[in-house]
Amino acid sequence: MRRMSPERRREQLIEVALEIYGRVPPEQVTVDDVTGAADVSRALFYRYFRGMDELHVAALSTIVAEMVDRISLPAGESVADQLRSAVEAFFGVVERHAEAYVALLRSGSVISTDQTDAIVDGVRDHIVTLLRERGGITDPSPLMAMTLRGWVALVEGASLTWLQEQKVPRDELVAWLCDQLAAMLAMTSHHDGSELVLE
Amino acid sequence: MRRMSPERRREQLIEVALEIYGRVPPEQVTVDDVTGAADVSRALFYRYFRGMDELHVAALSTIVAEMVDRISLPAGESVADQLRSAVEAFFGVVERHAEAYVALLRSGSVISTDQTDAIVDGVRDHIVTLLRERGGITDPSPLMAMTLRGWVALVEGASLTWLQEQKVPRDELVAWLCDQLAAMLAMTSHHDGSELVLE
Repeated sequence: MRRMSPERRREQLIEVALEIYGRVPPEQVTVDDVTGAADVSRALFYRYFRGMDELHVAALSTIVAEMVDRISLPAGESVADQLRSAVEAFFGVVERHAEAYVALLRSGSVISTDQTDAIVDGVRDHIVTLLRERGGITDPSPLMAMTLRGWVALVEGASLTWLQEQKVPRDELVAWLCDQLAAMLAMTSHHDGSELVLE
Repeated sequence: MRRMSPERRREQLIEVALEIYGRVPPEQVTVDDVTGAADVSRALFYRYFRGMDELHVAALSTIVAEMVDRISLPAGESVADQLRSAVEAFFGVVERHAEAYVALLRSGSVISTDQTDAIVDGVRDHIVTLLRERGGITDPSPLMAMTLRGWVALVEGASLTWLQEQKVPRDELVAWLCDQLAAMLAMTSHHDGSELVLE
């Protein structure tokens, strides 16, 4: 058992958990699994986390922080290019943390709780805010707001299906999602005249 | 306390609960609220339900049965007309049971459980199946399957926002949702050649 700063030790336990999630369904991972893989005592584990529930939340927060970081759209390119980069980055994070991502989003999952739901809602809101900012929409119409949230739900559902079924190449899925956003925005513009142009 | 058949009595308790949900947030409704409004004893209540959790599930099942019944698309008209009728019927049920509907679908809701999640998932699957049947799609492509599920998520999110914000007339929302499905299907067809024509 190597000496580490408390902060680094906490990070290590989260990293170990994320690594185990890749092999074992998260809801089946025990404190012993984590302490065994990290080569630390149970007493040390409980200095950082009250139990697996708290570690699950910390692991999700880590994935979310990585996702938010990666999808923050780079400036300078066209909005359409920024969108594609962001969706690609999103799928990169989803793929890297596939098992934890599925377990946390799956409705009725043992490790999905009020707290993880709130974190996931935060990511949804963040993506909608990014789309509005980059698209120059300060005051979206009600239908425009529904369109953006609906597209985020489409991305989320598609990413879960994609991970579970592996039937569509990632590049094709990314292109399809970007085009779907354009199609949905165009239809909403047709209905109420609001615009968010992805060019 | 009138005499009733056990079946009718159970229905009565569910009806009373749905009526109370219109005034009191479902998670705050107590057994006493229900027995008081139904003019029955607590002992009688517990002959039908183990507690409020079980009554919530029964109430949701009642709403779902009503919804499935109403949205079963009538034959004879064009597919586009059938779709519009079904979406209108969906919103009729949503509006009539607004408070229970919001409480049951809201992520992290006290009365949303694994059991209610499974019931809600069943409705989503039912709507996708209806769309496939009426659109003549026996073996949807992966993107087509994602499109149909994504549109159902759009309808669900839009209905929750619509109930909570009341900013869009119901007819406008129904027309917008039907047109969004057409736009999403056209874009998917453009990507993989699959077709579901709503005419």
